[in-house]
Amino acid sequence: MQNLLVNGQWLAAKKPEDSFHARNPSDRSTLSEREFPVSSWQDIEAMIGHASEAARVLAKTPTEAIASFLDEYARLIETRTEELAKTAHLETGLPVRPRLAEVEIPRTVNQLRQAAAAARAGDWARPTIDTTANIRSVHGPLGGPVVVFGPNNFPFAYNGIAGGDFAAAIAAGNPVIAKSHPAHPHTTELLAQLANQAVKTAGLPQATVQLFYHVAPENGKRLVSHPDVAAAAFTGSRTGGLALKEAADKAGTPIYLEMSSVNPVFVLPGSLQERGSEIADELHGSCNLGAGQFCTKPGLVILPSGAKTDEFIQQLKNKFQQTAPGVLLTEGGEKTVAETVGKLVDSGAEILAGGEPASQTHFGYRSTLLRVSGSQFLKNPEQLQSEAFGAVCLLVAAESLKQMQAIVTVLEGNLTGCIYSSKSSTDDEAYQAIASELRFKVGRLLNDKVPTGVAVSPAMNHGGPYPSTGHPGFTAVGFPATVIRFSALHSYDNVRHERLPLALQDKNPTGKLLRYIDGAWSTKDL
Amino acid sequence: MQNLLVNGQWLAAKKPEDSFHARNPSDRSTLSEREFPVSSWQDIEAMIGHASEAARVLAKTPTEAIASFLDEYARLIETRTEELAKTAHLETGLPVRPRLAEVEIPRTVNQLRQAAAAARAGDWARPTIDTTANIRSVHGPLGGPVVVFGPNNFPFAYNGIAGGDFAAAIAAGNPVIAKSHPAHPHTTELLAQLANQAVKTAGLPQATVQLFYHVAPENGKRLVSHPDVAAAAFTGSRTGGLALKEAADKAGTPIYLEMSSVNPVFVLPGSLQERGSEIADELHGSCNLGAGQFCTKPGLVILPSGAKTDEFIQQLKNKFQQTAPGVLLTEGGEKTVAETVGKLVDSGAEILAGGEPASQTHFGYRSTLLRVSGSQFLKNPEQLQSEAFGAVCLLVAAESLKQMQAIVTVLEGNLTGCIYSSKSSTDDEAYQAIASELRFKVGRLLNDKVPTGVAVSPAMNHGGPYPSTGHPGFTAVGFPATVIRFSALHSYDNVRHERLPLALQDKNPTGKLLRYIDGAWSTKDL
Repeated sequence: MQNLLVNGQWLAAKKPEDSFHARNPSDRSTLSEREFPVSSWQDIEAMIGHASEAARVLAKTPTEAIASFLDEYARLIETRTEELAKTAHLETGLPVRPRLAEVEIPRTVNQLRQAAAAARAGDWARPTIDTTANIRSVHGPLGGPVVVFGPNNFPFAYNGIAGGDFAAAIAAGNPVIAKSHPAHPHTTELLAQLANQAVKTAGLPQATVQLFYHVAPENGKRLVSHPDVAAAAFTGSRTGGLALKEAADKAGTPIYLEMSSVNPVFVLPGSLQERGSEIADELHGSCNLGAGQFCTKPGLVILPSGAKTDEFIQQLKNKFQQTAPGVLLTEGGEKTVAETVGKLVDSGAEILAGGEPASQTHFGYRSTLLRVSGSQFLKNPEQLQSEAFGAVCLLVAAESLKQMQAIVTVLEGNLTGCIYSSKSSTDDEAYQAIASELRFKVGRLLNDKVPTGVAVSPAMNHGGPYPSTGHPGFTAVGFPATVIRFSALHSYDNVRHERLPLALQDKNPTGKLLRYIDGAWSTKDL
Repeated sequence: MQNLLVNGQWLAAKKPEDSFHARNPSDRSTLSEREFPVSSWQDIEAMIGHASEAARVLAKTPTEAIASFLDEYARLIETRTEELAKTAHLETGLPVRPRLAEVEIPRTVNQLRQAAAAARAGDWARPTIDTTANIRSVHGPLGGPVVVFGPNNFPFAYNGIAGGDFAAAIAAGNPVIAKSHPAHPHTTELLAQLANQAVKTAGLPQATVQLFYHVAPENGKRLVSHPDVAAAAFTGSRTGGLALKEAADKAGTPIYLEMSSVNPVFVLPGSLQERGSEIADELHGSCNLGAGQFCTKPGLVILPSGAKTDEFIQQLKNKFQQTAPGVLLTEGGEKTVAETVGKLVDSGAEILAGGEPASQTHFGYRSTLLRVSGSQFLKNPEQLQSEAFGAVCLLVAAESLKQMQAIVTVLEGNLTGCIYSSKSSTDDEAYQAIASELRFKVGRLLNDKVPTGVAVSPAMNHGGPYPSTGHPGFTAVGFPATVIRFSALHSYDNVRHERLPLALQDKNPTGKLLRYIDGAWSTKDL
């Protein structure tokens, strides 16, 4: 059985409740070489204890040490790219090249370095000084561990021990207790080895990064509601997210969730007329990328009815029919995609392409296109917004622009929403009517562009209204904004100067830190 | 029966579930001149409908109109200071001068003007531009109403229709549905008249500000969990706050709560030696200010045992014994203060002064000082941290500095925490040990100063870890930071330039707006 990373040591699980193996999605085989524990509460509780102590030490640790940990960890991942990518390929079926070795690992390393830069710069923490009232404030660490649950679809960039939530929590000065996704435990174990090595090099407390692989749902809920756990982050299914949210909410623990999204795309008549074929290509590509296993996959496309639309749909149908089914990450995913397609059909959608399991050689489901009328959609909007985490797309043929507008109003909260419109002004009125409502339903509003491919940009919002996440004000991607999630606002009233955090002392600690001083932004010393 | 403010009209309540009168706390009389409705769900639902429409109009309204509403409202309140203060005095027992007319109303007006300034300046919304990825983001309104529940103790500065939460929600561009506190409904009605007048002058949608007076708990929960309600804010008791939080959490609605705080004060040995008498004076004043009905009242004072402490306690005891009982805001408050003192006594605290109801002429409870040993406190920390919303203070005599440190670790989340230490360095070691832990338990850390008197400063944190609030990252006081609570992060990906909000267009809309452009802060045009 593989060991857990507890307080800097690799320790055998104590009385694990169960064990599991990863699977190879490409051939459905069990990766029997390594057996991973389903941890008991005893192990989890020990990690919380160590992390709580580490949180206190980290709070006094110079920012530079935290930043250098992130940089060193990034460097170590980079040097081990080949091994990591191969391992992740075995556990996820995602191709080594370009996806893992050339896209996702570089992105992960980049995120860790951006987190290091954010920690060094310090302006994510919004230092504010009021010399008249003699009050100063800055965001600081939470004083306890952040628990990070990573998803199945990004073994690196969203991994609980290496992804965006991890990097943000560390940059804010908190220790992390990471849960591996059970679909890629060995990849996560390798990452944990590198993280642990970097922790030691940087001289951070041993329990800055800890790892377990799996846990019973009850213990997951107990973990996020433990009084010493300061915050939690989860990326995954709505069911899993809501269960953790309920537990965390009851305990008053902030939890950041990325749960589900169908990412509606509105195609306006002028754009269909102008470049329908091009748009069909883009949508097909976006929907099938990574076998459709992206949180920003466009799963719902709303178009006006008409001859041009029939042509567009025919084209899309041909493309979906000709698409070889991609590899799904898990057997469970294969099952739920099938169930969700069934739910869409039961709710009145008609299958145009796919709608069947793929060959039995790998986990998979055929690339699936469905269609429903606008009226039918409006009759059952909840069921017809069910997210299928695979290459599944539901087309909604609206009877009129007015009906397209009605559809916006029944949409749930989503990560993204996109509108294709004519390059001329013919769609402008419809655009305004739809965009003004869609704005409140999505975190990122796109024009003329598919939503997949989440740029790690300071202007990104990888977030959105409930139930796509748990709070519309935060993003899971994009430094420095993403760091603030894992912090508390610390105000200092009449606190003696030498006792203040460096960011609030009279002298600007970097000479470049932007501070809000007496109502104006400044990088000057006081 | 008094009318509700619904969509700009003063309308009779439809089938109210009940009715109530305000009371005069100074003589326990019923203010029978006006009868106020306990609203039915029908009235509440109508307000939500109007506010949802208003939210859509407000989102397209120029910021200047919103700011000018806030300014005009402030001006109207100022011109009616005398009448408002007199009315509030009748309903709350708080003195017209200085408290209401010279402190609280000026503060309220100042907050509204700061909110207007924040709306005009726009930097609360953190505009961010990435020209390479062509993604831009800015915080924007939520797309639905914010429901604000004000507390009993500030008829103006925290009133649901005039206080900090109200001002922040409006500054972010959202309509507000305000609930009056039933202890001061006519004060709130007068404010609503002025708000409504200012709405019309500024040309905002009629339903920008709406008012009801009271509602059954079930309908309160239904309100904060209504899918069209975008956020809620509550200041009041922990019981009330937690009930609303549970309902809002289930619905995924952000709710900002200020619920309870005992505001621990640590008095270190050197400071006791140096200026014990001075500190006793300060604490006595802070604890008895406003009859102790402040969220930041110091309700828990931790000191080391010893001769100097006995002297300090004796002095404080004399002062409490000689203090005439202040007027409590409500009969219910009188009852819960008595119950809480009973709970403290049951948990091992000894009454040194007070501990009895005041005379029957006004709502009140005698100024009460209690004492408990550090060991006893550590045996029952939960009960002994019960907040009594009145002039009640529990002294904890710790056996050692080490025990004082142990006491910090069992503290709940609080709005404030204070440490008195010697002007020389004799307390420095103890300060570090206590402050480093206390930092994680409080929103505002003070040195050598009582916590009452919440300055409206950009560096203020009127917030803190759960259960003092629902999230440690937000403040209920202090512009511009407080505005962000009532916003969503809006990212624009590849959105055509003319469709972007002004704050994200190439030209800096004010010439002074600070934007994060390609990784650097700038006020320049692109």
